Amino acid sequence: MLPNWLKQRAFLTPNRTAIEISNQKITFQQLHEQVMEMAEKISSLEVKMGDIVAVHMKNSLEMIVVIHALKYVGAVTLLMNVRLSEEEITWQLHDAKPIFLISDYILERISYKQYPIAEVKNREHDSITIQENFHEDDVDTILYTSGTTGHPKGVMLTYGNHYHSAVASALNLGLYQDDCWLACLPFFHVSGLSLLMKNVIYGMKIVVQNNHQPDVLNQVIQDKQITITSVVFKVAKEMVKELAGVYPANFRCMLLGGGPAPMTFLNECVEKRVPVYQTYGMTETASQIVTLSPEYAIEKIGSSGKALFPCQVKIMKEGKEVGRNEEGEIVVTGPNVMNGYYNREEATKENIIDGWFYTGDMGYMDDEGFLYVLDRRKDMFISGGENIYPAQIENVLLSHPHIEDAGVIGVGHEIWGKVPVAFIVSNNMKEEAIYTFLQEKLANYKIPRNIFFVEKLPRNASKKLLRRVLQEWWEELK
Amino acid sequence: MLPNWLKQRAFLTPNRTAIEISNQKITFQQLHEQVMEMAEKISSLEVKMGDIVAVHMKNSLEMIVVIHALKYVGAVTLLMNVRLSEEEITWQLHDAKPIFLISDYILERISYKQYPIAEVKNREHDSITIQENFHEDDVDTILYTSGTTGHPKGVMLTYGNHYHSAVASALNLGLYQDDCWLACLPFFHVSGLSLLMKNVIYGMKIVVQNNHQPDVLNQVIQDKQITITSVVFKVAKEMVKELAGVYPANFRCMLLGGGPAPMTFLNECVEKRVPVYQTYGMTETASQIVTLSPEYAIEKIGSSGKALFPCQVKIMKEGKEVGRNEEGEIVVTGPNVMNGYYNREEATKENIIDGWFYTGDMGYMDDEGFLYVLDRRKDMFISGGENIYPAQIENVLLSHPHIEDAGVIGVGHEIWGKVPVAFIVSNNMKEEAIYTFLQEKLANYKIPRNIFFVEKLPRNASKKLLRRVLQEWWEELK
Repeated sequence: MLPNWLKQRAFLTPNRTAIEISNQKITFQQLHEQVMEMAEKISSLEVKMGDIVAVHMKNSLEMIVVIHALKYVGAVTLLMNVRLSEEEITWQLHDAKPIFLISDYILERISYKQYPIAEVKNREHDSITIQENFHEDDVDTILYTSGTTGHPKGVMLTYGNHYHSAVASALNLGLYQDDCWLACLPFFHVSGLSLLMKNVIYGMKIVVQNNHQPDVLNQVIQDKQITITSVVFKVAKEMVKELAGVYPANFRCMLLGGGPAPMTFLNECVEKRVPVYQTYGMTETASQIVTLSPEYAIEKIGSSGKALFPCQVKIMKEGKEVGRNEEGEIVVTGPNVMNGYYNREEATKENIIDGWFYTGDMGYMDDEGFLYVLDRRKDMFISGGENIYPAQIENVLLSHPHIEDAGVIGVGHEIWGKVPVAFIVSNNMKEEAIYTFLQEKLANYKIPRNIFFVEKLPRNASKKLLRRVLQEWWEELK
Repeated sequence: MLPNWLKQRAFLTPNRTAIEISNQKITFQQLHEQVMEMAEKISSLEVKMGDIVAVHMKNSLEMIVVIHALKYVGAVTLLMNVRLSEEEITWQLHDAKPIFLISDYILERISYKQYPIAEVKNREHDSITIQENFHEDDVDTILYTSGTTGHPKGVMLTYGNHYHSAVASALNLGLYQDDCWLACLPFFHVSGLSLLMKNVIYGMKIVVQNNHQPDVLNQVIQDKQITITSVVFKVAKEMVKELAGVYPANFRCMLLGGGPAPMTFLNECVEKRVPVYQTYGMTETASQIVTLSPEYAIEKIGSSGKALFPCQVKIMKEGKEVGRNEEGEIVVTGPNVMNGYYNREEATKENIIDGWFYTGDMGYMDDEGFLYVLDRRKDMFISGGENIYPAQIENVLLSHPHIEDAGVIGVGHEIWGKVPVAFIVSNNMKEEAIYTFLQEKLANYKIPRNIFFVEKLPRNASKKLLRRVLQEWWEELK
């Protein structure tokens, strides 16, 4: 039994600043009061304990208030990516069947019961009985994973998953009295959402920043005494590139998720003394599960680190745990790992065996047990019998100073089965120069058969490369 | 499912110093190796999963190794206070029925299967299968507490209780990269034992110090870069008195348990900038459950603070929660709170209702919800850091055929805080004979400093001893 997090936090440290957003500061007590009122208004829409309510909102104080209010009334929150197409939204709504959708504004072309937030806020409200205690096994949120193939699946995260994720992060990164986390990832992704949990569980201030220009973020770190932030690679790269001197001494951690970062970037971080921590995690693990701890940041550059205490990781191949330096599937367990997918018994059974979650990602551990993530399994392809991980080729491309962004996919080939092709964002590189560069760095079979210059790569809200869009581009171009 | 803490810690951060004791340093990897060997040796004594093994040892590296080794083999550890009398030891052994007792040396007058540690260390050993995962609900340790009435009861603490206690402490006190805890409380008390859990769960160094002279402790804090320590009032008072200047800046927390400290002492701490945190906890809560957080240290001087996140506290009277500033019984809940007493279904049912543990302690909350502890279990008092329950001493006295009635109270003492004095009704017993009798039955610290012979004890209509009248008698007699 856990107490209602925000309510208990407001009782314990009412006057601490909880959230700073657009230069407005709000204490835990004020946040609790706003959430109480919102809970009463939502309750007037006849929400019962355990009902699913969908939320389609962009990061804002209102969105945070809605997320907590749904916990107060005991509803399960389905958080929707605001960048989804109408078809994708409709699909998720019909899969999860929430009782209604709360949104920033009416989604005109979505025929589903909707309440824009302005309408919710205008509702009459009466005092209600809130959820005083949270139960570890109760589902709190449903988040759909993009799933590069097939339909997206709804990951069910319990109160226990979120709590233990926050705890595991604190046990690994430490927890300082002056900690202040810069929140610039969307709250509809687990990477952003997990900050809202840490906010109330730690009693730690967060600064919500919606302008993601690298110079703006660097300035916020300086001005707001930020100690930690979590970012995706593309943003981190720009921030570090923009950085003139060094970050303030109290900025102690830049958590870098979303796949292995290239060596050149990590070296630049060492040079500019950027405290970058590579991490590995996914929606199913309620955010990070593996992080490179401070004492190994330089020695093990390029690794994602070791499991957060009390999580565990192993590498499996054909039903057996493999030895060190052998490739296999990354398999994880811990109290932050989900119990299953919503209404997907088969997929749940396939992916969770004896309490261990099979991630579908490929990797290996070195002699000392540090994890190296090779690639999403689905993205890996075989060319003439050789495994090719697109991320590796992308890392090499991105290590070139004149290549701004790069995406690689495997495409059908009558002799080799599949071969790599690359999409590149660059102002002044010529194809020939790229090939010369790659020939020094990569085995021949890994060198892209085609290189396409594009203006921008397709990335989702959390800046993750959408390889399936690259596949569509290829279909048109080939 | 949690990983075997020490084994996982040795995997995650093998080369960090785990323990410093008598100027010897040992890393987590070395500790794990010593524990593995000890587990093999203990296993050769035919210990099975779930067996209870008693430990009667003083703080030492060997004792720490034994405590972890018993977890490796899946045994339940009964930790015995080394200051207990032979009769008290025998009573606990016959109550818990461990399969044997591991001790520093053979306890000559205890007829129970015993293995002195030297003998265990000399055993042949083969490789064994250890407990790779700890289950939250499995009992890890049994610690006896004396009840106000009747016999002591065995508090069962699970792996989950210990884990959540360490987590709750970190969420409240923070967790810094340079944290180093000075361990000077006995590991057979929950206050000391909980440090061994924090040690491996946080991956934090502890410095074990067996010389408790205040000047020595102050010097250790200085020399070993100690950041936190937990002490009993008597020792804290002497340390602060001895302190010439101030503690180093990185010494960030002196946790003070064992009942409310007097204002004069707290004021002295403010003056000398000693970061003293008053706490409240007991064996049943696996150590602290309420702590005064940094921002209120001065404003709320004298309070024990608020519940550690995610624990909860309420004040109950006659089955109802009382309002602010009203006295009542302190009732607590949280994942660190025990599930029950060993083999005491009745006592468990009486004390744990709907998941809330009734502490038997009296207190109130002020307007802002800060807890003030009035009295520990009404009659219990603390003497040199040890809990003394007058009823236990009275029971021993009353067991003598020539003692007709007996009443015990705690009275102020400048060194020990409090000491017991006894009032006795007896026709023909001499003081000397009573002391001889008591020395066989009770730990030294429980033996009354003064014995007064009286004609009759003050009892109410239902024959309940009126201790406050005894207090008045003492005021006249002293």
